[in-house]
Amino acid sequence: MNSYTVSDYLLARLNEIGIDHLFGVPGDYNLQFLDHVIAHPQLAWVGCANELNAAYAADGYARCRGAGALLTTFGVGELSALNGVAGSYAEYLPVVHIVGAPAQASQRSAELLHHTLGDGDFRHFLRMHQEVVVASSVLTADNAAAEIDRVLVCALRERRPVYLLLATNVAASRILPPVMPLDRAQSVDNEQLQAFSMAAERQLAAAQRVSLLADFLADRAQQRERLSAWLSEVPMPFATLLMGKSVLPESLYGFAGTYAGRCSAPATREVIEQSEVIITVGVKYTDTITAGFTQQIPVEKNIDVGLFSSRVAGREFSGIPMAQALAELHRLALRYGSGWQRQIIAPPEMEQEDADDLTQRGFWQAIQAFLRPGDILLADQGTAAFGAAALRLPAEARLVVQTLWGSIGYTLPAAFGAQTAAPERRTILIIGDGAAQLTIQELGSMQRDGLHPLIFVLNNDGYTVERAIHGAEQRYNDIPGWDWTRLPQAMQLGSQAQCWRVTQGVQLHGVLEQIADASRLSLIEVVLPQQDVPPLLAAVTQSLEQRNSVE
Amino acid sequence: MNSYTVSDYLLARLNEIGIDHLFGVPGDYNLQFLDHVIAHPQLAWVGCANELNAAYAADGYARCRGAGALLTTFGVGELSALNGVAGSYAEYLPVVHIVGAPAQASQRSAELLHHTLGDGDFRHFLRMHQEVVVASSVLTADNAAAEIDRVLVCALRERRPVYLLLATNVAASRILPPVMPLDRAQSVDNEQLQAFSMAAERQLAAAQRVSLLADFLADRAQQRERLSAWLSEVPMPFATLLMGKSVLPESLYGFAGTYAGRCSAPATREVIEQSEVIITVGVKYTDTITAGFTQQIPVEKNIDVGLFSSRVAGREFSGIPMAQALAELHRLALRYGSGWQRQIIAPPEMEQEDADDLTQRGFWQAIQAFLRPGDILLADQGTAAFGAAALRLPAEARLVVQTLWGSIGYTLPAAFGAQTAAPERRTILIIGDGAAQLTIQELGSMQRDGLHPLIFVLNNDGYTVERAIHGAEQRYNDIPGWDWTRLPQAMQLGSQAQCWRVTQGVQLHGVLEQIADASRLSLIEVVLPQQDVPPLLAAVTQSLEQRNSVE
Repeated sequence: MNSYTVSDYLLARLNEIGIDHLFGVPGDYNLQFLDHVIAHPQLAWVGCANELNAAYAADGYARCRGAGALLTTFGVGELSALNGVAGSYAEYLPVVHIVGAPAQASQRSAELLHHTLGDGDFRHFLRMHQEVVVASSVLTADNAAAEIDRVLVCALRERRPVYLLLATNVAASRILPPVMPLDRAQSVDNEQLQAFSMAAERQLAAAQRVSLLADFLADRAQQRERLSAWLSEVPMPFATLLMGKSVLPESLYGFAGTYAGRCSAPATREVIEQSEVIITVGVKYTDTITAGFTQQIPVEKNIDVGLFSSRVAGREFSGIPMAQALAELHRLALRYGSGWQRQIIAPPEMEQEDADDLTQRGFWQAIQAFLRPGDILLADQGTAAFGAAALRLPAEARLVVQTLWGSIGYTLPAAFGAQTAAPERRTILIIGDGAAQLTIQELGSMQRDGLHPLIFVLNNDGYTVERAIHGAEQRYNDIPGWDWTRLPQAMQLGSQAQCWRVTQGVQLHGVLEQIADASRLSLIEVVLPQQDVPPLLAAVTQSLEQRNSVE
Repeated sequence: MNSYTVSDYLLARLNEIGIDHLFGVPGDYNLQFLDHVIAHPQLAWVGCANELNAAYAADGYARCRGAGALLTTFGVGELSALNGVAGSYAEYLPVVHIVGAPAQASQRSAELLHHTLGDGDFRHFLRMHQEVVVASSVLTADNAAAEIDRVLVCALRERRPVYLLLATNVAASRILPPVMPLDRAQSVDNEQLQAFSMAAERQLAAAQRVSLLADFLADRAQQRERLSAWLSEVPMPFATLLMGKSVLPESLYGFAGTYAGRCSAPATREVIEQSEVIITVGVKYTDTITAGFTQQIPVEKNIDVGLFSSRVAGREFSGIPMAQALAELHRLALRYGSGWQRQIIAPPEMEQEDADDLTQRGFWQAIQAFLRPGDILLADQGTAAFGAAALRLPAEARLVVQTLWGSIGYTLPAAFGAQTAAPERRTILIIGDGAAQLTIQELGSMQRDGLHPLIFVLNNDGYTVERAIHGAEQRYNDIPGWDWTRLPQAMQLGSQAQCWRVTQGVQLHGVLEQIADASRLSLIEVVLPQQDVPPLLAAVTQSLEQRNSVE
């Protein structure tokens, strides 16, 4: 007897692309599917406290595993998750959003069901999602195999979210198991590739000063290893933009800091902008990471490698996946790199902190010393992400920031997703008090699952990043004062979490020693001055306020 | 000097339609507008912990005040709120969603700004909203006055949400103050009204048994007073559907209980369905409140009054607002009602509870005894809403349920909104543990504002409503176990909240005595059996599971 269903097929395909965990919230239209998830031998269900948090967790998981998946129920659940899915779209994360829907018979009769708008139209939420996914499908028993394959391949190729609507009866429909693996091959235009290679060679053979600037799309195209190999074989100056920070090996000779246009450290700016050839890989010049579009990368000196096309001095070569273009550049660097100048680069160092009271500066120094190879560090949009910009990350360390989409509170559930994806690595979360209030309930889920992230809540008494932009003393930037160290206990009966509140540098250092190898969830409330911001943030926010105030 | 801006104009109009509070979360694209909110003498800013909660709070406020307003920032903020706005659309609440957007100059240049998808398209989120609002506008300095007026009038007329996109520079643009009040007159087709009245008269004059069944749209059209007057002047049997419960005066003679199709109490069903003429007012027969469309209201016996059109025995009369149609029926009831039979109706009584251990039955009995005239009772979708269906509400008491949209967690922020709207009334929130975890952070905001809701968390160890539908013992219906009574203290420094955990009836009764007039936030964790559900829910969920399992 064949009892294999559409649900099983979908789960097999998810598993095939590296997904071992499904995040989400149950609802009556997805319970049939969930029965199959629970029964699946390799794929685990990870219930979250709400759907937005689940979407954030799936996104964090995708950053560490290459892909993630999210299950919600029709209407209420999927719309709560939408901001998270949009973030995955903006920042290129392949997250598969599966939505349990009413039975097809109910949809056909346009029934006035709960979790609908009560108008018999079952496509409203599909249409809303189509603005923020690269593929979507309304599954049926007949199309399920083909459509699941098409949509998943699209997610992997485009590195962006997709949407599957799965009616209760379709989830239970019988189907044959997949017989072939997914066809994930990317087509390459070899003529274009060769032309690109020749054009790049003309530039690189003649140059003496060559720099490399990478951003987040290099990470999304999974080119970290390629770039690490290249930079360890061919010493040359390199930097990342903040969004792509940690895609390049910062422990290596050649690391020049985080590039942020005119708000870069002078040495960083000079070594990148003044090269004869600037190789850019997977860059997207968005406002906050360029201090308002102040990057200076002259097109005639630029070899730019994008996800699917590349440019040499402004000439575009299309139909080339990033991996192929980088393989060519890597080869050329090995051939010509010995002729390139090995500039001495002094990446910017943090200044020393003397005061007893904790400041942003002292905090980030302590974190710099605390970091270890392989750590996953998540820094929420706000003072955290911009403070993290100044770190020099150890080997194989990973930074997760959400600088383009910039949804505050994102990193707390994302840390849940990241540690679920890589439980063997230390997960360090740095998040402001205002941000943490948005998504705090996931403290419960983390503890239920025995996770042990190290959580630093920067308590600066409100939305400090907003204060830096506008309304420093305005009441709307205040938030309710929470007693942070009580929360883990409130959100888990018999909690084993350990909590501290620190106001002085010496306290922070003491706590850091204690938690370095903690096997329990650790929450450290770090009390910081209300208007204190990292230097990069101060510069960036000035530029933002100016742009918002344009008449 | 005229320093009056588009922001001031919008705030003046909001205030004119009864909105004294603006809920939301600050973000850098709405801070310019927020400066004007803070400066406004009548309209107060109410910061929420996240945007979904803010949308729920604005919806709860609108249920008590007739309209509500919500402010979010571009992209991240507005999408987080979208599920709440969709709920207001499904359930007919005029909530004005104002979204702060990047300056027009940045939009025109298609800049790659934070909080966008990074593609230069600034209309994605507007298009997504257009599925769940009845009017929207991209405001400019030139169109602001006309568009604000058009959109607000549409919200009031249709009783549904609207969307205003307000760029930072438009918010600061100068404009003249309004000179005329908003034109809120509803057009009436007098010929149709007269024809309706005559058709209804033929039915009512000849009948001896006439019943009235109302639902939520009667509340949304603000016909509560009209209906109360009618039913106190003309004794006749009446009931509501669950969604509209509290729109009719349940303390009056004639109250027949909550009608739920074949899951109604037998007396309720009989007195409604067996009448010669059944007047229905503002009804929408959705699945959960009719036990799966089992209502029996024969069209030939039915006078149905809708928001904008009415029907007599299937014949439609359009262009008649509900208020006008009801005025006619009220007049006819006064004329002919003395000839109608005064049936003796025994509304269903709750059975007595004997056991020491608390059960759903014992809990709802205690709540029935605890209620007072004028209370606002919010019951979350789940065991709470279906338990509340069996209550007989005191005079002027108000029940808030979200039965059609059914987004769990909704009522906690909605209680925040309701008590902000009506601080002089007791606000009683009944919510399950699974639901409360979705939106718990608003406990902080309530305390910051000195509110004092009475919160009953029904701790039945997971999603009991889901268990009743499917997967009673499945792990996906479990949730992390929280220590509920610690939460208010964790979410407010120096909290004055009082908390209890009760497992026995005698404890619950003791606590109820203590909190009857509490001026502090009170949280009572009520421990209930995991699989215990109110009788109506048991019947309804059977029907839902059956429908979801259709092949």
